[in-house]
Amino acid sequence: MTYCLALRLEDSLVFMSDTRTNAGIDNINTYRKLHVIAAGDDRLFVLQSAGNLATTQEVLDRIDRDLATPDAVSLATVEHLFEAALYLGRLSQWVVNEHRPALNVTGADATASFILGGQIAGERPDLFLVYPEGNYIKASDERPFLQIGESKYGKFMLELAVHARVELDDAVKVALSSMLSTARANLSVGPPYDLGIYHNGSLRFVEHRIEEHSPYLAELQKVWVEQLESSIAKLPKVPFDT
Amino acid sequence: MTYCLALRLEDSLVFMSDTRTNAGIDNINTYRKLHVIAAGDDRLFVLQSAGNLATTQEVLDRIDRDLATPDAVSLATVEHLFEAALYLGRLSQWVVNEHRPALNVTGADATASFILGGQIAGERPDLFLVYPEGNYIKASDERPFLQIGESKYGKFMLELAVHARVELDDAVKVALSSMLSTARANLSVGPPYDLGIYHNGSLRFVEHRIEEHSPYLAELQKVWVEQLESSIAKLPKVPFDT
Repeated sequence: MTYCLALRLEDSLVFMSDTRTNAGIDNINTYRKLHVIAAGDDRLFVLQSAGNLATTQEVLDRIDRDLATPDAVSLATVEHLFEAALYLGRLSQWVVNEHRPALNVTGADATASFILGGQIAGERPDLFLVYPEGNYIKASDERPFLQIGESKYGKFMLELAVHARVELDDAVKVALSSMLSTARANLSVGPPYDLGIYHNGSLRFVEHRIEEHSPYLAELQKVWVEQLESSIAKLPKVPFDT
Repeated sequence: MTYCLALRLEDSLVFMSDTRTNAGIDNINTYRKLHVIAAGDDRLFVLQSAGNLATTQEVLDRIDRDLATPDAVSLATVEHLFEAALYLGRLSQWVVNEHRPALNVTGADATASFILGGQIAGERPDLFLVYPEGNYIKASDERPFLQIGESKYGKFMLELAVHARVELDDAVKVALSSMLSTARANLSVGPPYDLGIYHNGSLRFVEHRIEEHSPYLAELQKVWVEQLESSIAKLPKVPFDT
């Protein structure tokens, strides 16, 4: 599996992806799931992927080929972000349909989900979750985050961050905490972690990889566990004899 | 869905269950999922159920009928806790198989999972997760908790509690926090919540219902969110410019 999340803040977008892939439990690998797509000077796209690795790789290759093909519909030609999401949905469906007859023989599922974020100059930056069926949902003011893959374990931190209306630095910590809680509970999610930040209007992407054995990750995990344990201790006692 | 959890501590067992049931999203009800079974003076059984409500109710009725039937194998006649778990697994499979042909017509799933806890005098108290297939796993010293139903959202709190080796009062807070985080993220889990405590060797069960609008639950939720938000603020900043 996979865990990718993206947050839409007042002034920026925050992306976080793990890098673990598995085909069964004895074939574990590390693949990047956070991708920046250069599609022109007036736009920036960020793609996060979950699901079948063959499908997501072929989708990325087809995106690149379309960009290099004169007159083809591509991420360079779409006028609005939602059209980019629909284009991505069509590619994803096309790839899955192409391989479905062969995959059905073994019962394998080739579908993939994506988070597409970014900005086209003149539009507000946004986040889209593109389903295997080709349609999408967007982040909203009430729910300014999206998740794909193993989304349940780390969801409450994101809700908390929304509740607290955190700023960029805290949002990054929240994203990391959400990732750490997920990786701790689910072996199919693991480091290194890719963090990406898009500052609204910049059309430039800031990226950092957080390695498994980095001192920062160890410190973060230690402080997070200490804080949570002290939080539990501070909860009010149940109002009856135990 | 449902969320039930049970923790095995040094001196006691802690059980927590929600009470929400749903058949589709427009048929929501409240049913008890935490049951104590009186099966004799030398034993106490606690049952938590998840899955098909018709199956869990019929299983409970059959447990009672067996207890009232002279010479029948029942929770009164088993000699060890693991035999109680296997007996429960057989009943559950029997009920599902009985209704399967009719259910298959509509594609409905009638399976159920159970947590069985308790003590038979002379044995240590223990917790069993009984699968729809009729087999079981037990809690262990390394993983002294079991969950059924929507288990992902609230798992990390339980792991944390284990890490911190909490005592009874804190374990109850942890169980409630795990329940609240789950209910917040998933509409199919909801109050009131049933809390049960078994003190090792007592052969007596302490039960409390925590109502949806109880001042304690409101206070607990408020403090938990405040504590988590302050925890996030105290996390170390990422070691690069954002």
